Amino acid sequence: MSDGFGPDNLPYGVFTLGRGERRIGVRLGNGVVDLSALGGRLAAASLNPLMAAGRQEWTAAREAVVAHVAWGPPVIPLHDVTLHLPFEVADYTDFYSSEHHALNVSAILRPGSPGLSPQWKHLPIGYHGRSATVVVSGTPIVRPSGQLGEGLFGPSRRLDVEAEVGFVVGRPGRRIATTEFAEHVFGVTLVNDWSARDLQAWEYRPLGPFLAKSFATSVSPWVVPLDALAPVQAQPQDPEPLDYLRPAGPGFDLRLTVEWNDTLVSTPPFTSMYWTAAQQLAHLTSNGASVRTGDLYASGTVSGPEREQVGSFLELTRNGDDPVKLADGTLRGFLENGDVVRIGGTALSAAGTRISLGSVSGTVVP
Amino acid sequence: MSDGFGPDNLPYGVFTLGRGERRIGVRLGNGVVDLSALGGRLAAASLNPLMAAGRQEWTAAREAVVAHVAWGPPVIPLHDVTLHLPFEVADYTDFYSSEHHALNVSAILRPGSPGLSPQWKHLPIGYHGRSATVVVSGTPIVRPSGQLGEGLFGPSRRLDVEAEVGFVVGRPGRRIATTEFAEHVFGVTLVNDWSARDLQAWEYRPLGPFLAKSFATSVSPWVVPLDALAPVQAQPQDPEPLDYLRPAGPGFDLRLTVEWNDTLVSTPPFTSMYWTAAQQLAHLTSNGASVRTGDLYASGTVSGPEREQVGSFLELTRNGDDPVKLADGTLRGFLENGDVVRIGGTALSAAGTRISLGSVSGTVVP
Repeated sequence: MSDGFGPDNLPYGVFTLGRGERRIGVRLGNGVVDLSALGGRLAAASLNPLMAAGRQEWTAAREAVVAHVAWGPPVIPLHDVTLHLPFEVADYTDFYSSEHHALNVSAILRPGSPGLSPQWKHLPIGYHGRSATVVVSGTPIVRPSGQLGEGLFGPSRRLDVEAEVGFVVGRPGRRIATTEFAEHVFGVTLVNDWSARDLQAWEYRPLGPFLAKSFATSVSPWVVPLDALAPVQAQPQDPEPLDYLRPAGPGFDLRLTVEWNDTLVSTPPFTSMYWTAAQQLAHLTSNGASVRTGDLYASGTVSGPEREQVGSFLELTRNGDDPVKLADGTLRGFLENGDVVRIGGTALSAAGTRISLGSVSGTVVP
Repeated sequence: MSDGFGPDNLPYGVFTLGRGERRIGVRLGNGVVDLSALGGRLAAASLNPLMAAGRQEWTAAREAVVAHVAWGPPVIPLHDVTLHLPFEVADYTDFYSSEHHALNVSAILRPGSPGLSPQWKHLPIGYHGRSATVVVSGTPIVRPSGQLGEGLFGPSRRLDVEAEVGFVVGRPGRRIATTEFAEHVFGVTLVNDWSARDLQAWEYRPLGPFLAKSFATSVSPWVVPLDALAPVQAQPQDPEPLDYLRPAGPGFDLRLTVEWNDTLVSTPPFTSMYWTAAQQLAHLTSNGASVRTGDLYASGTVSGPEREQVGSFLELTRNGDDPVKLADGTLRGFLENGDVVRIGGTALSAAGTRISLGSVSGTVVP
């Protein structure tokens, strides 16, 4: 199917029809195929039971779904259903693994400082976020308030987005080798890590971002199973990482799009990321920390080398100093109330086709 | 009762007897009173249902428990039960609200830098931690591994503790005023936020601590209900905080103890904290972020003005440069394998007595 939701994709989601119960479905074209009749872990109200079952079950479930879809089951039109958060989020972790993004942010926010911090190429920097406020695409984003500087409290004036790719952990574990990535990660989702740059600049030293990001993190309603994606060669890394981060594991050929009020403003390429998702998971669990079913870890803002490939408006508009012109002729530095941001994406599939990752959108409200 | 667990205390915990199911109990003297016979939310397997019910139910439950205990119910000896994590942790947040601690850490780790970061007296600095690895007192602490610096991976050589007080959120909310603190916070627990200083020093810029703290956070098995505690005058604050952080809300007269292999090495006074728990909760939710039943937020390391009042060994031993002598004559800079740390505490009760907060302990294993 030309829209990227053919039988080579079949991402999982959770939907309701009218006042019905939550059901697991897969997206096919512009509709949803109800999987509850397949029973077992596909008859649940969230993906967590299936996610907990592990790789063998995931592959078996996908085979069953592919066979089911081949029979031409009823397809419920998308506009008849409500889509929900497809899994219950356990811990949410966010990385910072685009070298271009890290360099851009450093140059804009800390001019004169050495671009990358000394450990940047030795480990994938990450931090914990707030799992309570991970919301599904379409949830309105209430502009956060906070301290914008000394003595000043009010609505953020520098509300921004971060276009990221999220990895959803199924099977629990700790000290997970990069080679065990596919045994633990169930699938991929799109993430918008909304960020209030003014809150962030004032609060973040020395313990990192807190309220600047905790008000909302949006995810797409579809989890594309790892089985649907083609692994590709990851970026070369120099210096060679330490043993526990080797081999690097697969890269993925994901191409994101960022639309600001229906104007396409950027196309971040995931292939430009420095650290792989397998390295992020290995690092996250290298100290003995456990991951659980429902853990979500995000790649960090995806920014390519070019100005039109950046994953945040901080970068796109140089901290608001160089606004972009939208299709309606208006200029934007940061987000205004009523603005809609939609992050979409496509992926190279295991079948060699280009499939859709769906999209994650949100409207800013006062 | 002289041990601080009389009818003026009655902290809640979750226990099992043999292979039985988890039950809610209160501690009385050296034993546990089973509350399951009281039914309702006291017949659950965790405190979460009771915690979700709100202040009115909490007070009613406590009255029922006090009446029950007055009848002389059976007391199960502590050594016959296994104590569990008393609630399911939703999001875990950690603050940094002791001025003495912040100044000490800055002087030790960032000599020459201005002591407090510019925003320190304007907002309670905090960050998110890992809820998956919040464990109950007694859980062995496996020494974390990680990058100790460039090119070096191995077990942490600077394993430390942080003596803190944890506040357990019952009723969900957002934009919680400081005056609404008692409507949302169910009770108090002791926290040891184990920290690997070598991992922390290498990883923390610019996004804060991550693996240095995510391997384990221990909490005491008893949650002392807010109803049991006497509010006291909080520390004066200069400059006056912004409106959303006023009034400051209550302080609590909690006195902690830190024992290292049975040697009392420090007595951190909670009354010396700069920011109150009510201000921390107000700040945490001021941007619109929600708190849920089971959220745990910790005060930050409690350090008083004196050397023998600090809440971390980093401070106590000046980053290992000035070791302490334990009762067995051995010297310690940081934790060695086999070491046991027990953080205890007492509180001024609503009845005007001194009650126990129990303790949180852990043994370091390789």
